[in-house]
Amino acid sequence: MMPGRVTVVEVGPRDGLQNEAASLSTPDKIEFVNRLSSARVPVIEVAAFVSPKWVPQMAAAADLFAAIDRAPGIRYTALVPNMAGLVRAHEAGVREVAIFAAASETFSLRNINQTIEASLDGYRDVCRRARELDIRVRAYLSTAFGCPFEGDVPPSRVGLIARALAEMGAFEIAISDTIGAAHPGQVPIVVEAVAGFLPLDRIALHFHDTRGTALANVLTALHLGITTFDASAGGLGGCPYAPGATGNLATEDLIYMLHGLGIETGVQLPALLDASRFIESRIGHPLPSRYYRASAG
Amino acid sequence: MMPGRVTVVEVGPRDGLQNEAASLSTPDKIEFVNRLSSARVPVIEVAAFVSPKWVPQMAAAADLFAAIDRAPGIRYTALVPNMAGLVRAHEAGVREVAIFAAASETFSLRNINQTIEASLDGYRDVCRRARELDIRVRAYLSTAFGCPFEGDVPPSRVGLIARALAEMGAFEIAISDTIGAAHPGQVPIVVEAVAGFLPLDRIALHFHDTRGTALANVLTALHLGITTFDASAGGLGGCPYAPGATGNLATEDLIYMLHGLGIETGVQLPALLDASRFIESRIGHPLPSRYYRASAG
Repeated sequence: MMPGRVTVVEVGPRDGLQNEAASLSTPDKIEFVNRLSSARVPVIEVAAFVSPKWVPQMAAAADLFAAIDRAPGIRYTALVPNMAGLVRAHEAGVREVAIFAAASETFSLRNINQTIEASLDGYRDVCRRARELDIRVRAYLSTAFGCPFEGDVPPSRVGLIARALAEMGAFEIAISDTIGAAHPGQVPIVVEAVAGFLPLDRIALHFHDTRGTALANVLTALHLGITTFDASAGGLGGCPYAPGATGNLATEDLIYMLHGLGIETGVQLPALLDASRFIESRIGHPLPSRYYRASAG
Repeated sequence: MMPGRVTVVEVGPRDGLQNEAASLSTPDKIEFVNRLSSARVPVIEVAAFVSPKWVPQMAAAADLFAAIDRAPGIRYTALVPNMAGLVRAHEAGVREVAIFAAASETFSLRNINQTIEASLDGYRDVCRRARELDIRVRAYLSTAFGCPFEGDVPPSRVGLIARALAEMGAFEIAISDTIGAAHPGQVPIVVEAVAGFLPLDRIALHFHDTRGTALANVLTALHLGITTFDASAGGLGGCPYAPGATGNLATEDLIYMLHGLGIETGVQLPALLDASRFIESRIGHPLPSRYYRASAG
């Protein structure tokens, strides 16, 4: 049985642009977010409040939040790696943030320079403070379908870390296929491991299309009752012709399939293509979304 | 319930190369087919016995069949547009051919210069002669999920033409998404329209990945009981960065998903990547298969 409605979380402005070589100007980022708002994408991850010396593209997070047009009914979120990030996000008027944990110890150490346990301790404080500030917290759980360093990741560990994140107050856990290797045979195993600890409407899935399986994974997850999926306009952040492509699932491809299934998303596909056309003109290479490319003709 | 085994029909040497700008030498084509044989793809459509003046890449069909190494257990097939093609294929020792019908009148007229009815009349003679020669006939039914000229194509018409092709002797009908617009909401409607007239094991599906939905379509069809799918090594014949890309589903992407689902295909994925690497070096542009690109690094 298919859900009647799905929530699409647009991660292009943050996750997507962070993985692009080109560094965009703040006015261009504002324009991109505003066009995504025009497309009525219900959730837009706008920026990350991280130290600018680590991720230069994210230097202007506060400026961005000050300048974008916030459309009614659309949630504008930001990644915060720690308490300092939460404080800056709060000062910028952000009402919903995302934290970023990993299911692989090696990936956690290399990516955020902390053990899984230490990162969870830090996020517990972030969640506590966020609650005081009435800010909602979403949690990414990366490497949930495999790790670039460790290979297989036990689904039971994914379930336990998801539970820890939920218990500290994250309203939704985005189970993430960091290496883009998830396939429809694996999706039920991981989803069921997580669903043992938290309800389906608190589980989101974040797929990369690195091996072409992202939409088939979404279809599998829809049958399991999952109703929230992350995607990136045009597939921003992953170019199939570039080495090391991360390959976010393209929002257009996702919307085309969902609407074909009769599932409502609220997203206006022509306006979304317009947002992708704009960002493509700024990043210096063709966007990988297949639907977008077919439309570009 | 998933099938335990699926038959993959490799259409790269014919359908794929026919839609590439580069014209390959006969020795290169031989090498490509031999590498596909090494990968143990169970069915390989090698060439088309058409008039060389229409499709120059196909001029050397007989030479090709004379020169390839035929591995035991692998079926080597050829497209034949008419009786003359069947005769030439027979002379070349081909034991299985494919005919090409359309579900859209306009597409039939523009693509094979005949009405649907006239084409079926011709194919009836081809099937009769093939039976006398003990040659098996497979039938493509193109534009089954939509037509580039007419738009929507009634599934009932797809069903009726599939029945006509089966009645004239085609052992299998490849229901084909010529424009690459099929999505998982549409697949059950079309498959059920055809399954009203012939058993599931005589229905194959031929998807293009133009809008990224091909694997999700295959997954949907697997649940319906379909066990034969066409694909093209590396996604040969469709480049997402080229206008008018036809975008065959890539064999690698298909195999990766099927094996992930625990479905046997007999195909050796590393050897298949090797075949794709070879053909990529000859066609002058990167192959679009996502799995292939991820493997190429």
